Amino acid sequence: MPLAHPNPLVSRLSPPPIPSVVAWARDYDGGKGPLIDLSQAVPGYPAHPEMLRLLGEAAASPAMTGYGAIEGEEALRKAYAAHMSDVYGTSVAAANVHITSGCNQAFMCSTIALAKSGETIALTNPFYFNHETTLSMLGIGRVLVDCDAAKGFLPSLASAEKALLSGVRALAVVTPNNPTGAVYPPALLRELFHLCRKYGAWLILDETYRDFLPADAGAPHDLLSIEGWDETLVLLYSFSKSFCIPGHRLGAITAGPRIVGEIAKIMDNMQICAPRAAQAAVATALPILADWRAANRLEISRRAEALKAVMAETNGWSIAAIGAYFAFVRHPCGDLPSAKVAERLAKEAGVICIPGSYFGESQDGYLRLAFANADVGVIGQLRERLR
Amino acid sequence: MPLAHPNPLVSRLSPPPIPSVVAWARDYDGGKGPLIDLSQAVPGYPAHPEMLRLLGEAAASPAMTGYGAIEGEEALRKAYAAHMSDVYGTSVAAANVHITSGCNQAFMCSTIALAKSGETIALTNPFYFNHETTLSMLGIGRVLVDCDAAKGFLPSLASAEKALLSGVRALAVVTPNNPTGAVYPPALLRELFHLCRKYGAWLILDETYRDFLPADAGAPHDLLSIEGWDETLVLLYSFSKSFCIPGHRLGAITAGPRIVGEIAKIMDNMQICAPRAAQAAVATALPILADWRAANRLEISRRAEALKAVMAETNGWSIAAIGAYFAFVRHPCGDLPSAKVAERLAKEAGVICIPGSYFGESQDGYLRLAFANADVGVIGQLRERLR
Ligand SMILES: Cc1ncc(COP(=O)(O)O)c(C=O)c1O
Ligand SMILES: Cc1ncc(COP(=O)(O)O)c(C=O)c1O
Repeated sequence: MPLAHPNPLVSRLSPPPIPSVVAWARDYDGGKGPLIDLSQAVPGYPAHPEMLRLLGEAAASPAMTGYGAIEGEEALRKAYAAHMSDVYGTSVAAANVHITSGCNQAFMCSTIALAKSGETIALTNPFYFNHETTLSMLGIGRVLVDCDAAKGFLPSLASAEKALLSGVRALAVVTPNNPTGAVYPPALLRELFHLCRKYGAWLILDETYRDFLPADAGAPHDLLSIEGWDETLVLLYSFSKSFCIPGHRLGAITAGPRIVGEIAKIMDNMQICAPRAAQAAVATALPILADWRAANRLEISRRAEALKAVMAETNGWSIAAIGAYFAFVRHPCGDLPSAKVAERLAKEAGVICIPGSYFGESQDGYLRLAFANADVGVIGQLRERLR
Repeated sequence: MPLAHPNPLVSRLSPPPIPSVVAWARDYDGGKGPLIDLSQAVPGYPAHPEMLRLLGEAAASPAMTGYGAIEGEEALRKAYAAHMSDVYGTSVAAANVHITSGCNQAFMCSTIALAKSGETIALTNPFYFNHETTLSMLGIGRVLVDCDAAKGFLPSLASAEKALLSGVRALAVVTPNNPTGAVYPPALLRELFHLCRKYGAWLILDETYRDFLPADAGAPHDLLSIEGWDETLVLLYSFSKSFCIPGHRLGAITAGPRIVGEIAKIMDNMQICAPRAAQAAVATALPILADWRAANRLEISRRAEALKAVMAETNGWSIAAIGAYFAFVRHPCGDLPSAKVAERLAKEAGVICIPGSYFGESQDGYLRLAFANADVGVIGQLRERLR
């Protein structure tokens, strides 16, 4: 009798990384004080009380119990389009927006919309691990674009062009970057856009950490002002981090109406529509919590400064890149693989972070610290813990 | 300059069927009274007030804002496992349960866990359309298993064996069935199970409408009592219909721990975890709303009886199959394609239902009526409308 077996494309994947990393900390004896969790990116401050009130109100409403529009609640599509228009100083319409259950889903929908099994998509090295595993389980190949550590981990244009020449269907990049924190300058993004356009490939931009850019930085890029942007560009966003509501699962895709239509076909199969109550609540919260989000943005910058100070004073450690949410740091343990270093840090020092090797090839000299999770006081404690 | 194009596996799909069908009704002039919507399966009664209260309370809670466990909230996995143990008179553990954002997502996760692009999965003909489009967009082939209209649309074992011989990775069936309403007898399900086991294939059972089986029917099947069931069987369920909360997006997969582990890898990429607040609310509601659900089950049987009475008195129409939620009815319009008949019904009689042809091959003589959406009084009005 033959045994039924699961899809090898899935079996070969490692178990999800975050729970495995958190598991190391179970052996920590607390000797150095409470655990410091710098693993999964979650703001270390609570959601706004008004956000919670709106969430509760919408969830209790009979009007939110039925199936909703596949593309998302009209109120949220409009509110988010207005917000995008504001951030980018251009006009984005509700028809350009598709709401999803978080930004991982936005990425998965986009890849299915743009590439099929056997085709390839380019990611940077290092990459955000769920981008890699999403492609892998769908049988979509990945081509890696080099990032130069000496240049703050910005992707190399020559390497990107090589990937495009190989026939990738899309190039997916993350800015502000996870894991490195690197913020891609507008001029670089424009070059990547034009390269993609030249080769008939899509540019997917994951902007999950956009709201944590320095306040005075201006628009993150001007790609939405390029004529015909929607034949090349797909933007992804997450409401998880800025609104501190990952448990409610909301994200957004901004694209041309044609791609929004393709995504709707996929979403209908994947989950019909994103959960409705949270959509209604965020539609209301988006404009009224602008000041609160601006204050958080400042707070996160203070945390970045605090981490820089710690690193400058801690022997053997150094910051390879730091940005809106993450720092990618060089550890002092020479040839010890980053997974071993992270495991020891968790078990012996009560600090949870993610090994560089989880994010790509040749990243064993690094650890990713999600510094935004911890306040300035806690970050100060790293001085002791990292010794 | 080459143009970037979307994935042809997705472009070739028609737009999602429900919105297209609902669109026909915009031309209805109201002359025969208010619209009667028998298209998308949604109970025509509201969620229980206590359900709404629990949803509101959980959504307003700071404890629900963070990322949750990928497999689902422990409280809901336990409550649902206890419920399953009860329904099937056997022991199902929390480790057998993976919570998803609805049952479409449960199906998509299961297919990715069990088959890859280029492989095949067997569906019945007629099928639930999202099963078919999910396979299609993932590049998974489909093999159709015949159902005999003369035998109440139960799948033919000979046809199922032929599909299994062709090497399908899984056979997916829906009972109580969408679109036909057919309830598969336990003995038939056991034969399908053993056939799948014999050929090393998986049996996927979508039990979205399980709670609407007649109260005195006993356990829907005894597959969970078969030694080693979890090496062959994957059960899918939806909280949308029984709890009247499709907008909150919750479903469940019951499978062996190995498959639950595979699904967790997929869910981590697809959306990290199902929305948490609704999970907590349903965990509490599941046992306390048992009587309310039993009462709804009776109400739905009354609606089935009302529809039978209408059909018996309406010239040219007849019921080909009817069951827990749907009726698959023969229309009197001879060779007119079912989509044309449904369009005319919507525009001229204000009755929205789904053409048989949307559910498979050679189904043009039928329409699907989701009679559970309408109360007995409204169903009575169909007498006039179907003339
Ligand atoms: C780059 C990036 N994209 C997407 C996500 C997923 O976010 P969401 O919670 O919206 O699914 C994350 C979360 O860590 C992320 O870092
Ligand atoms: C057979 C079947 N499976 C799955 C679903 C999807 O249910 P959910 O709302 O849980 O995604 C439906 C809904 O109509 C259905 O009929």
